[in-house]
Amino acid sequence: MYYIGVDIGGTGVKAGIVDENGHILYKESIRTGAERPYSEVIVDIAGLCQKIIDGMHLSIDQISAIGVGVPGICDPKTGVIPFCTNLGWHEVPFIADMHKYFPGIPVFVDNDATVAGLAESVAGVSAGTQSSVFITLGTGVGGSIVINGRPYSGSHGVGSEIGHMVIRMDGEPCTCGKKGCFERYASATAIIREARRALPDHPESMIAELCENNPDKIEARTVFDAAKEKDPLAVRLFNNYVKALAHGIVNVINTIDPEIIVLGGGVSNAGEFLLEAVREAVKPFIFYKTQPYATIQLAQLGSDAGVIGAAMLGKQ
Amino acid sequence: MYYIGVDIGGTGVKAGIVDENGHILYKESIRTGAERPYSEVIVDIAGLCQKIIDGMHLSIDQISAIGVGVPGICDPKTGVIPFCTNLGWHEVPFIADMHKYFPGIPVFVDNDATVAGLAESVAGVSAGTQSSVFITLGTGVGGSIVINGRPYSGSHGVGSEIGHMVIRMDGEPCTCGKKGCFERYASATAIIREARRALPDHPESMIAELCENNPDKIEARTVFDAAKEKDPLAVRLFNNYVKALAHGIVNVINTIDPEIIVLGGGVSNAGEFLLEAVREAVKPFIFYKTQPYATIQLAQLGSDAGVIGAAMLGKQ
Repeated sequence: MYYIGVDIGGTGVKAGIVDENGHILYKESIRTGAERPYSEVIVDIAGLCQKIIDGMHLSIDQISAIGVGVPGICDPKTGVIPFCTNLGWHEVPFIADMHKYFPGIPVFVDNDATVAGLAESVAGVSAGTQSSVFITLGTGVGGSIVINGRPYSGSHGVGSEIGHMVIRMDGEPCTCGKKGCFERYASATAIIREARRALPDHPESMIAELCENNPDKIEARTVFDAAKEKDPLAVRLFNNYVKALAHGIVNVINTIDPEIIVLGGGVSNAGEFLLEAVREAVKPFIFYKTQPYATIQLAQLGSDAGVIGAAMLGKQ
Repeated sequence: MYYIGVDIGGTGVKAGIVDENGHILYKESIRTGAERPYSEVIVDIAGLCQKIIDGMHLSIDQISAIGVGVPGICDPKTGVIPFCTNLGWHEVPFIADMHKYFPGIPVFVDNDATVAGLAESVAGVSAGTQSSVFITLGTGVGGSIVINGRPYSGSHGVGSEIGHMVIRMDGEPCTCGKKGCFERYASATAIIREARRALPDHPESMIAELCENNPDKIEARTVFDAAKEKDPLAVRLFNNYVKALAHGIVNVINTIDPEIIVLGGGVSNAGEFLLEAVREAVKPFIFYKTQPYATIQLAQLGSDAGVIGAAMLGKQ
């Protein structure tokens, strides 16, 4: 039997046929066209699912389930997606609509970060663990909790929003309406913001050279590259970033205490340079000093995680 | 069948015979005598258990299990308590030792806050829910997580330390070595600290009158009583306290998303005055504005929660 995984993003929709071990056997993608009404987008999504079934010469009864990751949440009781801001969806009956195209096939929907974390716990770095927390460090900060091998989104489906845990009360204003959310300090956006703020006072910094004195060209990588070369400003920005990331990670350890914490998203491409610094920064903050605690690792599945994890929703 | 619940504190040990619904049928207590070595204290604890069995005229085979709440953690794999700072215990083989006195009876040990939360979820305000987070607002801030009806202490037993979640990076130094822990802002100690800091500049405050100009006499209740009378300083301190408490609660909602959040401990005796203010402060910080989220309630079981919850460890 096979599983279909669908990863719906603001710009593209990816779908794949996935085996029970979380390996993608066949994959296609289309533009989301999120500027169109939901009623048109869902037709394309269903069409994409049919296309990969046909593309692998499968019959519909070889598909165990369809799982879908969305940049939002889905009410587990009603199958309604209350809103996906990026897609302009509001109160859409997604699961019922998918059933019109694929009657008799179970359809599952969950948050895209949740789904990426599930993928790592089935076929990635956290495979074999029973509990894990996946933290996506990208434009924002997403979170995914797996407990007892299953994705955990809480009682109302609003949990695992690790990025909106406040780590600095009265700190940087967040899009969510609060101030000082983890996302404001641990995202790529945060690194870029801090570099742009500091650069005017540090024209000598290697960051200025790397971005050709154009702050609009600063990326998270720019800061990391300069920090690797021991540029003083970049090292300071990097250390501040690591400190904030470590605080969020320690909050996860002190509350959820998973077996493993997985760092994914664009920022995690900084690799071992970032990972080693984060592990060192976490160590002194551990509450029970002599007890074991979560290992911290980098994600392995990259951009396939969305399709794999969505498919694995159907296996749970 | 009956369960024994033992609540070990720094000053006293309470033990009770508890039925399967979490009702205490018989109860006794002794002084802990924590200045003595562990080897002496465990003899007294075992003796207390035997005393309540005899006191209710039960035979040993009518006891299903013994559950114990300790001010520390217990390694679930080894039955060893790595340390209880208040008791001076370090690497004590507690479960093995209890088995010497009660061979054949299962013995369970968990953190005292975890156990109090379990009690509320069996026989208190969160009875009937599957997931709850209990926050003890006392000298410190303790936390207890129940998921799927069972106490959740994480993969290494170091989770649910809600009090040591950082909400203000670089904030007030904490005994745990970090700065800005939730406990530093949401405990009774925090209210008292802030009142003592502010009082010299506000001799006109009702707080000065209530404590007879002796800052050592300030209690959390002093501030709440003055705030109820609309004393300006007290209202400001109260609002700051509620704001910090709301931030911690929202962090719990955004990560664990339980059905219910229960506030216990001495500070929760402020009752509806505190509860209403906290609920109002939480509301604007909710991420998914139109989705339901955890109800916030006051604990019901008071000082019996430790014995009841410990006993209920054996029922899990």
